[in-house]
Amino acid sequence: MPVMSYVRNAWYVAGWSQDLAAEKPFAITVLGERIVIWRTAAGNLHALEDRCVHRLAPLSLGRCEGERLRCMYHGLLFDPDGKVAEIPGQELIPARAQVRRYPVADRHSWLWVWMGDPALADQGLIPAAVGLDHPDYILGHGQLDYAAEARLINDNLLDFSHLTFVHAESFGAGPQFAATPGRITPIERGIRYERWTENSMGSSSRRSEVPMDSFMSYDFVIPGILLMTGGVFPLGTAKACDYGQPDYSKAVSGVTFTSQAVTPMEGKTARYFFSWGPHRNHGDEAQRDLLMGIAAKAFAEDKTMIEAQQRVIDDTPNPQVMPTAHDRGVTLFNRLVEKLAREEQREQSEAA
Amino acid sequence: MPVMSYVRNAWYVAGWSQDLAAEKPFAITVLGERIVIWRTAAGNLHALEDRCVHRLAPLSLGRCEGERLRCMYHGLLFDPDGKVAEIPGQELIPARAQVRRYPVADRHSWLWVWMGDPALADQGLIPAAVGLDHPDYILGHGQLDYAAEARLINDNLLDFSHLTFVHAESFGAGPQFAATPGRITPIERGIRYERWTENSMGSSSRRSEVPMDSFMSYDFVIPGILLMTGGVFPLGTAKACDYGQPDYSKAVSGVTFTSQAVTPMEGKTARYFFSWGPHRNHGDEAQRDLLMGIAAKAFAEDKTMIEAQQRVIDDTPNPQVMPTAHDRGVTLFNRLVEKLAREEQREQSEAA
Amino acid sequence: MPVMSYVRNAWYVAGWSQDLAAEKPFAITVLGERIVIWRTAAGNLHALEDRCVHRLAPLSLGRCEGERLRCMYHGLLFDPDGKVAEIPGQELIPARAQVRRYPVADRHSWLWVWMGDPALADQGLIPAAVGLDHPDYILGHGQLDYAAEARLINDNLLDFSHLTFVHAESFGAGPQFAATPGRITPIERGIRYERWTENSMGSSSRRSEVPMDSFMSYDFVIPGILLMTGGVFPLGTAKACDYGQPDYSKAVSGVTFTSQAVTPMEGKTARYFFSWGPHRNHGDEAQRDLLMGIAAKAFAEDKTMIEAQQRVIDDTPNPQVMPTAHDRGVTLFNRLVEKLAREEQREQSEAA
Ligand code: FES
Ligand code: FES
Ligand code: FES
Repeated sequence: MPVMSYVRNAWYVAGWSQDLAAEKPFAITVLGERIVIWRTAAGNLHALEDRCVHRLAPLSLGRCEGERLRCMYHGLLFDPDGKVAEIPGQELIPARAQVRRYPVADRHSWLWVWMGDPALADQGLIPAAVGLDHPDYILGHGQLDYAAEARLINDNLLDFSHLTFVHAESFGAGPQFAATPGRITPIERGIRYERWTENSMGSSSRRSEVPMDSFMSYDFVIPGILLMTGGVFPLGTAKACDYGQPDYSKAVSGVTFTSQAVTPMEGKTARYFFSWGPHRNHGDEAQRDLLMGIAAKAFAEDKTMIEAQQRVIDDTPNPQVMPTAHDRGVTLFNRLVEKLAREEQREQSEAA
Repeated sequence: MPVMSYVRNAWYVAGWSQDLAAEKPFAITVLGERIVIWRTAAGNLHALEDRCVHRLAPLSLGRCEGERLRCMYHGLLFDPDGKVAEIPGQELIPARAQVRRYPVADRHSWLWVWMGDPALADQGLIPAAVGLDHPDYILGHGQLDYAAEARLINDNLLDFSHLTFVHAESFGAGPQFAATPGRITPIERGIRYERWTENSMGSSSRRSEVPMDSFMSYDFVIPGILLMTGGVFPLGTAKACDYGQPDYSKAVSGVTFTSQAVTPMEGKTARYFFSWGPHRNHGDEAQRDLLMGIAAKAFAEDKTMIEAQQRVIDDTPNPQVMPTAHDRGVTLFNRLVEKLAREEQREQSEAA
Repeated sequence: MPVMSYVRNAWYVAGWSQDLAAEKPFAITVLGERIVIWRTAAGNLHALEDRCVHRLAPLSLGRCEGERLRCMYHGLLFDPDGKVAEIPGQELIPARAQVRRYPVADRHSWLWVWMGDPALADQGLIPAAVGLDHPDYILGHGQLDYAAEARLINDNLLDFSHLTFVHAESFGAGPQFAATPGRITPIERGIRYERWTENSMGSSSRRSEVPMDSFMSYDFVIPGILLMTGGVFPLGTAKACDYGQPDYSKAVSGVTFTSQAVTPMEGKTARYFFSWGPHRNHGDEAQRDLLMGIAAKAFAEDKTMIEAQQRVIDDTPNPQVMPTAHDRGVTLFNRLVEKLAREEQREQSEAA
């Protein structure tokens, strides 16, 4: 379990869009880098290194002035591209008076920040999350701070066999869930998990009166975004579609969507963002609240386990894992991350 | 004051037996090693390394199943000898799927764990503490966590001259107590302290109406166990028994027993366990409660002093002590510990 | 921004004189050194290294006995010069049984401790602060602990352009304040700041009904003592005295004095002491309370900014500042400190 790199050329979730009021600069540390994000009165979004060039005060304690941000220690004024526009009491502005700019985007109700080369910041790489305003879904949302490395949360989300144990009393997946693996397939920048459960009465979040086939599937993509859907289908659907993706218009109940994002903050802290709720045809606000109640319990279970795991790892001189059959998704994803991170580092050292 | 080793081939107190409910795994760190101890429904006691071989979750968050313990992250099931018995979703169990087992015993109301070579775990080495259920004594008990190295607590217990100063207002030993040393004798795996106070009215815990001779004596043995008794005797007894051990059946009052144990947890934390109370012939429940009240005050005084001492040591680049005449017990005991620790390390490196 | 040295041959403020009750030893860490200061029943002031030679317990937990201080762990008794006078239970006192003594003085309502060579402890070097009992001033006082290096607080006090930004809502200095620099002059062991504001209605602490000239001036001297006065004068005074020091007997209002002291404690903590209030001819107790209310708000603003700045610095691998025109005082003072600190180190290594 050597320290794992993270991919820099990726969009990381920095917050919920609705939580960023205009002209209220917001500080977040991503991949160990302090960033200030602000929305101007005109509605534009900017992100800079949160560290004044003068005496290193955080710009997030600053004041918005039009599109600019003023350091409120001694008043240096920064353009949104990071250049210093004004130094009180001084005419000349040195060429090096500049902080780093981060590309930033507001999409699917999340604020995304690009940690890599700004020239490569393609908004087409933003994962297809479902925003809180999506017309088809009724979503609740939340976030949790972890005293643990982001990679441990990723590992958790990449191996759903933990549902049987960690979530025995919340999601209510029985022992048979861990006994058989889901199908894992590599996809562009991530992995796909698919799982049919045939002839069952469902789980706590998708209970059924008569035996049905139920399906769940998620993509987990770089840097740590989970996009999951599923639903309950008439008995026989699994076999009829050869255990592949079903036609969701045939779902009889329980179609939901959840977007989840894991953002590495400092070395051993992370922020976890999530939404969940039913498709309009399969639920209402009450059903959403029921799901959010289950999620609150389940995500607290994960946090207890993962933070405890982190403490054990921290106390272990040379920590080694012993992967099992269920770790296929973990292994595929982490290998992909390491491959991309290595390539980035190679490109960077070639450029230098 | 170089970092002192601790002896590994020794029984360390891990807790009060009565605090360990059946099927409720309990986590404690001893000598920097995370250990899970559990009692099965059948009443058996087991102790394992508290670190799953899979992804290092703590087994103390696990679930008891018969004599086994299941990791509740992804469900690996552990035999009480540390071997993995089951991996959900996987047939083959790798040979290396095993955690360390610790010998563990329930004796004298304490749970004892053996930190050294399991082959040498002789229960005959468990010190002769007095359990809460001992027919002769009416004992109260408690425990305290220290933000200090165990060795500093040992040093405190090995030099009773501190009673005059630290406990001026609790135990009430006067200045003459520190002016003259007790008798210190080396014993098997420890030291013995004996002290007669002739022609006195006693201390706060052994007050007397007429002048008497009073005696106190304790053994302090590896790894850090104090076993103390004493009582008040007719004037002249000290001389009559040549300042040696008295015949306790001749005691007129104040016979008590206390068992105390110091367990090193992490590098600079320790847990201190203690019981105290009168012999049935010399006191009752009310007397026990009085003694426990004095102990609560006195042990808080020790904790304040020792934790402050630890902070000073931590701020001192090259800390050096200057031993005094009262340090004979400290010096003898610490030399013994270092000798045994060195021998253990030599044996270990020869075996390797 | 390399780690800056501090001058050792200087008087550091260790506390408010009135807060040190007789025979109540007081612990403070200055320049990373633990010191115990006590006042005897006879009224004498002593300061020693706060670390017993025996087993390193803090002497600040000790008991005053006449001019002496007894370690309340095992009872070693210390003379005010640091020598051990008594070891309970032992005749011989080793020659090395001694802790360091610090010269200490009670002056201008502050306790001052000399951190350098005791032979050089000239009380003439104590800066001319204004004590709480000064007949001309009605002073309030307080103190604040910082989770930041002392030098960052010094930097703050050496560049008053921050008033326009940090204190926009407390001291109420407008933008023009930061637009033009004050006059900075090197003085013995420090710098002097002087500033005339002509034809103005004053600031929140010196408001005026008609346009006036107002003056403020402070000395900032080693190790980190600010002594500031100022007042409001008839229009034309600035020009009439050629922008130099005015004759304070001509002031029409607003004459106040503030003494402030910054004491480095551990590496990244500091204690900040301050008094402020009007001259008797220009205010009363109510005016003092008004000023202290403004100070409470303003000093909390500084603390928020400086502690945030410290956290950013701590997270920055190789922190560099970019000085501006307003940094002249900062630069002069820090160069002086570094020069003196270097000289001290040279003298010390030559002596060794
Ligand atoms: S630190 Fe930003 S202006 Fe001085
Ligand atoms: S960490 Fe124990 S089963 Fe996965
Ligand atoms: S530590 Fe001070 S007398 Fe023992």
